[in-house]
Amino acid sequence: MDSAIDQLLLNAAAKERHFTGPRAWIPSMHVAVVTCMDSRIDTFRIFGLDSGQAHILRNAGGVATDDMLRSLVLSQRLLQTREVILVHHTNCGLHNLDEHALRAEIVRETGQEPPYAFGSFPDLEEAVRRSVRRVREHALLPHRDHVRGFVYEVETGRLREVTV
Amino acid sequence: MDSAIDQLLLNAAAKERHFTGPRAWIPSMHVAVVTCMDSRIDTFRIFGLDSGQAHILRNAGGVATDDMLRSLVLSQRLLQTREVILVHHTNCGLHNLDEHALRAEIVRETGQEPPYAFGSFPDLEEAVRRSVRRVREHALLPHRDHVRGFVYEVETGRLREVTV
Repeated sequence: MDSAIDQLLLNAAAKERHFTGPRAWIPSMHVAVVTCMDSRIDTFRIFGLDSGQAHILRNAGGVATDDMLRSLVLSQRLLQTREVILVHHTNCGLHNLDEHALRAEIVRETGQEPPYAFGSFPDLEEAVRRSVRRVREHALLPHRDHVRGFVYEVETGRLREVTV
Repeated sequence: MDSAIDQLLLNAAAKERHFTGPRAWIPSMHVAVVTCMDSRIDTFRIFGLDSGQAHILRNAGGVATDDMLRSLVLSQRLLQTREVILVHHTNCGLHNLDEHALRAEIVRETGQEPPYAFGSFPDLEEAVRRSVRRVREHALLPHRDHVRGFVYEVETGRLREVTV
């Protein structure tokens, strides 16, 4: 098998036979989970979720970027979610990333300056707090009373709350 | 139970006892999946993924925004993924969304103009193509030979490829 995508497509064809839907498009738990793209975070398994229960938003870091805020506004205004749970994790690639070195490498290789900051952070808990605050302060979101932040420990499977 | 987050935390505490890690931080299949936040898309189940195999990136629509490109650059340059699979889906909230009406509602309620476009699209397949092209054309990504786009049918569980 040359391509990982081909393997994923074989898997998907096999799984299609066990399809348990369809489900409604409004998430039944009215909650959105924002977390990192990290391969060790299976949000459905970790939170015991079934299809149709919660929105899942993921980028590098699980950071509350503009794109995540855009998505949350749609999640709340179009699809009736009312709570947000933000989950960063231990052993994250952005934790203490040398962003200057990465940018220099990219410029050297491609001749182009990255048009975005990568979002390196020096302190994990503080990064969670910053994302939680950013969501809580985003006035376009109608529901900001239940916004909480966590660290997921990829070494143990434990989830711990970060006080904001 | 007042809060959905409290229920998720109870679930997570129960699941922690069945933790199967730890796993390595480099995704073993060297692939990144970009898809929508939609609650009916359980990427691990659909693609038969296990913890530690693939990066998962999700926003409203599964659109290749700047934030997704930032994440993919980190995925490839820091964490050795080499392929990208983009998955939009049927019955998406952004499909034919009246963005003008949504913006007007937000301005009326909050007095603020949204600082981002929401990304409504009139044609599903064309939206997949646009995201695929955007990834393929992003020069900061070292691996762009295996970038493919799909539509996931939430009514049937079927995944179909979109030719680009």
